[in-house]
This record gives sequence, structure tokens and C-alpha cells, in this order.
Amino acid sequence: MDSLWNELTFAFSRTSMFPFFDIAHYLVSVMALKHQPGAAAMARKNPLSSWFTAMLHCFGGGILSCVLLAEPPLRFLANNTNILLASSIWYMIFFCPCDLVSQGYSFLPVQLLAAGMKEVTRTWKIVGGVTHANSYYKNGWIVMIAIGWARGAGGSIITNFEQLVKGCWKPEADIHRLKMSYPAKVTLLGSVIFTFQQTKHLAISRHNLMFLYTMFLVVTKITMMITETAVMPFACFEDTLNWILFGWQQQFSSCEKRSETKSSLNGTGSSTSKPIADASDKVQKKHTKKTE
Amino acid sequence: MDSLWNELTFAFSRTSMFPFFDIAHYLVSVMALKHQPGAAAMARKNPLSSWFTAMLHCFGGGILSCVLLAEPPLRFLANNTNILLASSIWYMIFFCPCDLVSQGYSFLPVQLLAAGMKEVTRTWKIVGGVTHANSYYKNGWIVMIAIGWARGAGGSIITNFEQLVKGCWKPEADIHRLKMSYPAKVTLLGSVIFTFQQTKHLAISRHNLMFLYTMFLVVTKITMMITETAVMPFACFEDTLNWILFGWQQQFSSCEKRSETKSSLNGTGSSTSKPIADASDKVQKKHTKKTE
Amino acid sequence: MDSLWNELTFAFSRTSMFPFFDIAHYLVSVMALKHQPGAAAMARKNPLSSWFTAMLHCFGGGILSCVLLAEPPLRFLANNTNILLASSIWYMIFFCPCDLVSQGYSFLPVQLLAAGMKEVTRTWKIVGGVTHANSYYKNGWIVMIAIGWARGAGGSIITNFEQLVKGCWKPEADIHRLKMSYPAKVTLLGSVIFTFQQTKHLAISRHNLMFLYTMFLVVTKITMMITETAVMPFACFEDTLNWILFGWQQQFSSCEKRSETKSSLNGTGSSTSKPIADASDKVQKKHTKKTE
Repeated sequence: MDSLWNELTFAFSRTSMFPFFDIAHYLVSVMALKHQPGAAAMARKNPLSSWFTAMLHCFGGGILSCVLLAEPPLRFLANNTNILLASSIWYMIFFCPCDLVSQGYSFLPVQLLAAGMKEVTRTWKIVGGVTHANSYYKNGWIVMIAIGWARGAGGSIITNFEQLVKGCWKPEADIHRLKMSYPAKVTLLGSVIFTFQQTKHLAISRHNLMFLYTMFLVVTKITMMITETAVMPFACFEDTLNWILFGWQQQFSSCEKRSETKSSLNGTGSSTSKPIADASDKVQKKHTKKTE
Repeated sequence: MDSLWNELTFAFSRTSMFPFFDIAHYLVSVMALKHQPGAAAMARKNPLSSWFTAMLHCFGGGILSCVLLAEPPLRFLANNTNILLASSIWYMIFFCPCDLVSQGYSFLPVQLLAAGMKEVTRTWKIVGGVTHANSYYKNGWIVMIAIGWARGAGGSIITNFEQLVKGCWKPEADIHRLKMSYPAKVTLLGSVIFTFQQTKHLAISRHNLMFLYTMFLVVTKITMMITETAVMPFACFEDTLNWILFGWQQQFSSCEKRSETKSSLNGTGSSTSKPIADASDKVQKKHTKKTE
Repeated sequence: MDSLWNELTFAFSRTSMFPFFDIAHYLVSVMALKHQPGAAAMARKNPLSSWFTAMLHCFGGGILSCVLLAEPPLRFLANNTNILLASSIWYMIFFCPCDLVSQGYSFLPVQLLAAGMKEVTRTWKIVGGVTHANSYYKNGWIVMIAIGWARGAGGSIITNFEQLVKGCWKPEADIHRLKMSYPAKVTLLGSVIFTFQQTKHLAISRHNLMFLYTMFLVVTKITMMITETAVMPFACFEDTLNWILFGWQQQFSSCEKRSETKSSLNGTGSSTSKPIADASDKVQKKHTKKTE
């Protein structure tokens, strides 16, 4: 029984991402790009730029990790097969007559399947990033976490940056950049876990861990898509950690006041601007709740 | 006769860019910088920053290709001779008493000669980029095209980026960044051609190809400068390709409408914002026509 | 006596930066970050982003020099000890109850001591950068100067860039980015000096030079802090150099006018916009004088 489980997870961890899971990943990424306002019009107006943006959406994480490790960002272009695969998916999504692909994708089961398969690729990327960083820095566990995180969730950072350079970027958007999205959080968690497993601080075999983490990813993702609520599985844990680390100083409100008056006498703008910023913070929290 | 032609083109392909063609390239680049509004004032106000911008204008393509291949972007600084050459040209153009250089450059024949010689350097850069990328990725022909393109026409991208960081960058400018300029197009064409030649898909010797492509570059450039019209030698070819790839779906306007209504019911902002964007696209096209 | 001096300076040049001088550097950098408006509020709202910004403030120079030499920018993360040290200082400064650290830092003697020790680290960084660049490019003295400069004063560039990406960046700020700050100037001077010493153009042993340059840095910094004036030790030298290089053309005002009218006839926007820009330049100079 145990050996059977082991064999199952081992076989799962040996699954090749290449044709099908990659296709799902490209499909979800490019559809996310197409649902941005004006993306379809931009594709007709300037196909090359739209293709470039789509490639960034598909390979952003790898590019970011390459930049952080000073490897050629163009390496992803050297893999001709994946490029052609992603390009054809981009072409079908944007230029298919009667917009067939988008209509097919608009059915919920298709979306669920594609999203689930995309989450599977996330695990593979994190593991790849952690092991790759480990080959560079033996015990640089911070680097491992960073690279695993970048490869798993770095696409959003790259695309934000690309929008900035292109000029179609609004100051309001940087709220989202400051607030971590759910994928970023869960990828950070996975990156930490796999780094500990790599450095032998977790007494669990990698293929078991990969299987469990992938199951967790897929289940949460699909539940979040069906019940259209941003269910945070570890929101409470997060709040606790937040309070332990950064919240408990709030009880010293009395001397906080004193220091504020002091430092405002010192003329540092920081503490004086704190109340306003906190207020705006609350407002924005409400706002994000609404939008979710 | 044939051997004579071969010897001629071979000798041409062995021409060294160093003193004269490089000088022409630096001259044209820095004059283009000086003709930007406020550049001369900025040079008096802050010479170091102006010198840095001029270096980016002169070596931008090489820097971009270095970044894309994860090579030190500072390598161009290691070539002291070229740096001193470009710096002295920058100094003469910006700080020559009585603005002699600019006045000399304002004569058309000088401009024609300099522009023609600059186009020659473009061929050399493309070939250098393609062969350099080939030494990294044996059959990564997409990488070869990208590197050849970046080294030949990447200066504009770098300078745009630098303007963005400096803050003297306007949202209107990103129209030009989205629309490919004529040099970018012709460099892309050359990069594709030389990549095919490199991968033995074109049965023509490199020095012949270099000679023909350079002649094509110089002739088109000089004709464009004399008859002050942006004559597009392959505009019709472009339109045909554009229609074959992206235009023919337009005929399915009926179901296009249907899908639009559908997806707007799905609440995706893309298709709803399409008509507006198309309209603005037409307007802008007219505008660019006018400005040309 | 001479040997005693030599031993002293040699011992000084062998001083390890690690625990104490690094702590002073991190303290000054993070306090500078905290004094930015809204930084304290942002730390409570989004600790991770604040931590990231603090790391950029502490290790910015190293990151920039890594980028310029195409080395992994993440290398600084591989040094776990320094990261933990800087992180704990960041935590104490931002989240210490009653803001004790800021209050302790608000005493002038503490500030003087920390600032002086930070200046010592600057010398070490410049020397490290110059020697490091020398190991790459044997006689690329421009590269040596650039790397020494980047490692010694590159933090401000990196943080400006990070603010740009984050969106909390104002166009007015780019005045400060165009104008070189005092640390940037003195670091450039030091980088030039140590490069000449490296290339054997200065007949002085390195440890003597390090001692003298560090003394110069510390003394000027502390005097500038005590007498709260931006005393420029080599302002006159600067002006002379500026006039020799770029000022003497002003006397040709007569033909300057002519060329202006000429080139404005040629329709180049540069010279026409010159007078306005010059005026604005004067205004801004007054303004900066006031603010200093």
C-alpha cells in the first residue's frame, strides 16, 4: 500500500510537462492577456508587439529568474518548440475566425481543466527554480526561495514592468503591485517548503511533497473558481504571523504618540504622514474587498 | 568577370569599420540626439548626463544585445578608443564655438554621406550579432534574429528606456514605440536574411549577401532623404502579409459581431473596447500619415 | 617614524568591515529610507515590500555593479549573515516599540559616529569595485572608474529606479537625478584616484591612499553635518574645470546668435528651445540653493 502510494507519487513527479500542461499554461496566460482592456485591438493594430507581450506572459517567470541569476534572458527563445507552440496558441486565440477559441474557453469546465493543469506546471517551475539556484549557491537558501518564487510567480512582475515601459501603466495599478496576489503568496509558501526539503530540513521525499503541494494548489484554485470568492486558505495564519511580527507594537500607543510628536518636531515627514496613509489603507482594503 | 565580382564583394566584406564608418555613425547618432528639443540646453546644464545619453545613442544596440545575452553591458566601455572617438565627436558637436559642426552638418551632401556610411555599419552590426548569437545557440534561429535585430536597431529601444528612467518621457511617445520605425523594419528583414544564410537555408555566399543588402540599405536611405518622403520599399508586401496573417478574419464580420456581444455579456472588457480602439487606431494612422 | 605610519595605515587598510562598519552602513541607509514620507506607513501596510526596499538601500551599489558586469544580482542574497544583519536592523528601526531606535538615532553624536563609519565603508567599496573590474578588463580604466563609482554610490540610482517601477516617483525628482549629489561627486573622485593608483599612474601605496581618502571623506562629511551647510570642498575646482571644458564658448555669443537663427531656420527644435531652458536652469539653480 505504502509502496503503491510511493510509486504513484514517483510516477506523478516524473510526468513531463511538455505537450499538454504547457499548452494549458499558455492558454490560460494568453487568455488573461486577451481579457485586458484593449489587448485585442492592440493585436490587430500591432501584432508583433502583442506577440511579444504574449511571450512575456507565457515565459515571464523563467525570464525573471534568468535575469536574477545573470543568465541570458533570451534562452527561452532558444527552445524553438515551446516558442512555436505558444505562438500558435496566441495566434489562434487572437485571430481565430469567429473568435472560436475564446468562445470555447468561456465554458466553465474548460476553464477549470486549464486552470488546474496550469497549477500543476507551477509546482514543476518552483522545484526547477529551487534546484537550479541550489546548483549555484550551495547553502544560499534565501536565493533558492527567491528563484523558486520568481520562476513560479514572476510573470506578473515582468508584465507589470513591460506595461510600465510601454507607457500603458497607471499609478493606481501599483496598489496591486504592492499587495501580494494569491498566486504570489502560495508560490512563496511552496518555494519555502521546497527549499527546506532541498536543504534536508523537511523529512519528506520530494515526490511526495510535489504530489501533496500540487493537490493543494489544484483544489484551492478550483474551489476559488467555482465559489467565486477569493478564499484565503491561510488568511488566519497570515494575520497571526502579521500580528506576532508587526502588530504587537500597536499596544504601545501612548509612547508611539510621544515619539510621533517628537519625530514630527524633528521634522521627519514619515510619522506625520502615517495616520493619513493608514486611513487610505483602510479605504483601499474596503475597495479591494468590493472588487474581489 | 564573376571572379572579379567575387573579389570585389569579398574585399568589401573585409572593410574595417573602425575609423571612418564609426565616425559617421557617431556623427549621425549624436546629431540626432542634439536635434531633440532641449538637448543642447541639457548639455550645458549637465554635461555628464548628456555625455551618457550620447554614449547610449552611439552604443545602444551593442548594449541591448549584451543585456539579452547576459554579457557585461559595460563591455563597450572597455574599448577605450571608440569611447574617446565618440566622446570627442559629442564634445565637438555640442561645445564647438560658433556651432561649426552643426552648420557643416546642415549641408545636404554631408548628411547624405554620413547617413550612407551609417547604413553600412548597420549591415556589419547585424552580421556580427547573428554570428555571435550562433556561437551561443547552435540552432536557435529565433535568438539569432533577435540578437541581430537588437544590435542593428536596438539603440532606439535603449534611448527610449533611458528617457523613461530620466522622466523626460511622454505617453504620446509610446505610439512610436508600438509602431515599428523604418530602420527597425529593414533591420529585422536583414536579420532574418542573414540568419537564413547562417543556417545554410540561403544558397548565397555571405560577402555577396552583405554587399547586396548594404547597397539596398544605402540606396533606399538616400532616396528617402532626397525625396523627403517615407518611401516604404516593401509596404505592399507588408500589407499582403498582414492581410494573409491577420486580415482575412475581418470577412467573418457577422459572427465577429455575435462573438463580441457574447463576450461582452461575459463581461470581458477586450472586445467591447475594440471598436473604440479601432477608431483611435484609424485616427492615429491618419495623424502619422500627416506627420510623415 | 615612517615605518610606524606605514604600519598604521597598513593595519587600517586591513580592517574588516564586517560587524561594526556594516552595521553603521545599514543603520544610516535604513534611517534614510524611514525618513522618506510615507515609508513608515508603507512598512506597516506591506512589510515585505518595505523590507525589499530596505535591502535595495543597503546593497544597491553592489547590485548595480553586478548588473553592469553581468553577474547575478542575487549574489548579495547568498551572503546570509549580512542579509540577516540588515534585516534585523530594518526590523528594529521600523517596528521597535516606542520607536526607541529612531529616538536614539536622533541624538547628534550617534548620527556623527554612524555617518563617519558609513563613509569608511565607502572607501572599501570603491577599492573593491576597482580591483574587481580590473580582474575583468585589464586596461579598461573607464570600466574600473564606472564600477568603483557604481559600487560606492550606486544605491541612489537603484532606489530611484525602484521608486520608478513602484510608481511612487514624481517628475520633479528627476532634477535630483540629473544633478549629481555630493556623495556621487566625491565617490567619482575617489574612483578616479584609485583607478589611477591601480594602473600605476599614482606613485603612492594603496593603503596610504585609502587612509588619506577615508580621512578626507570622514572629515568633510562630519563638518557638513555639524555646520549644516552643503560645503563643497572642490566647488571652485569644479567651476574652473566646467568653464575650461564647456564655458569658454559662451564668449562667441555673437556667432552663437547667428547659428541659433540659422539652425532655427533649419527647423531644429533644439536651439530654439535653448533660451527657455537656460532660463529655467537659472531658476532651478536658485531654487536648489534655497533648499540646500
